[in-house]
Amino acid sequence: MLIPDSHADILDKQAFASVATIGPNGEPQNNPVWFGWDGSRIRFSQTTTRQKYRNTRTDRRVSLSILDPDDPYRYLEIRGVVVDVEDDGDLAFINSMASKYLGLDQYPWHQPADERIVIVVQPTHTTTMG
Amino acid sequence: MLIPDSHADILDKQAFASVATIGPNGEPQNNPVWFGWDGSRIRFSQTTTRQKYRNTRTDRRVSLSILDPDDPYRYLEIRGVVVDVEDDGDLAFINSMASKYLGLDQYPWHQPADERIVIVVQPTHTTTMG
Repeated sequence: MLIPDSHADILDKQAFASVATIGPNGEPQNNPVWFGWDGSRIRFSQTTTRQKYRNTRTDRRVSLSILDPDDPYRYLEIRGVVVDVEDDGDLAFINSMASKYLGLDQYPWHQPADERIVIVVQPTHTTTMG
Repeated sequence: MLIPDSHADILDKQAFASVATIGPNGEPQNNPVWFGWDGSRIRFSQTTTRQKYRNTRTDRRVSLSILDPDDPYRYLEIRGVVVDVEDDGDLAFINSMASKYLGLDQYPWHQPADERIVIVVQPTHTTTMG
């Protein structure tokens, strides 16, 4: 397993991942997302109009910086590549994120015009502290 | 002022910044740091052996993702460039970070062999949420 056992628990917490992507001019971009973990891949939701999504269409490499919400001196960095983009037209994934992070059955901020997709990341390398 | 007034307060809190840099093969790297803010520039400490420091010698562009520790649905992304690297041989800067984050006069984990420097980032662009 690529994710060290010592830090895998962080992935099941209500932790945020700051996701770094490569922008149109090769510059880093970075902002926080909710994420899911199925034991082998990281998933996070996007709408198709978001810059982060467009970035991953050009360069599939991403890096997630994830702090333990219970101890900020413990963290896990996961580098990886976007291996799939899944449709979320029925909102199943974003609703599962609302359940994980908000304890709600449905994502409360969905806009009818939003075209939701799921970015699927295959981890390739990790670094840890704490 | 480049930093929006609406989110500038986050910079004075005990918030962590996930710093994305560009690695040797153009890939994003990303991990959390303590940081200081003087009203115009972001500073964070590194030792000269760290990959993040080496990355910024090759590509000066960085992006900091900073969540409000009191409200994770408020965040500030600061993109910028490394404009200076300052010597911290007397540990003045790392000790000021220990004061901000730990309430201590001295950084407790200094190793005699560590060559400490300060990465100075000039913000060029911000994005916010919340």
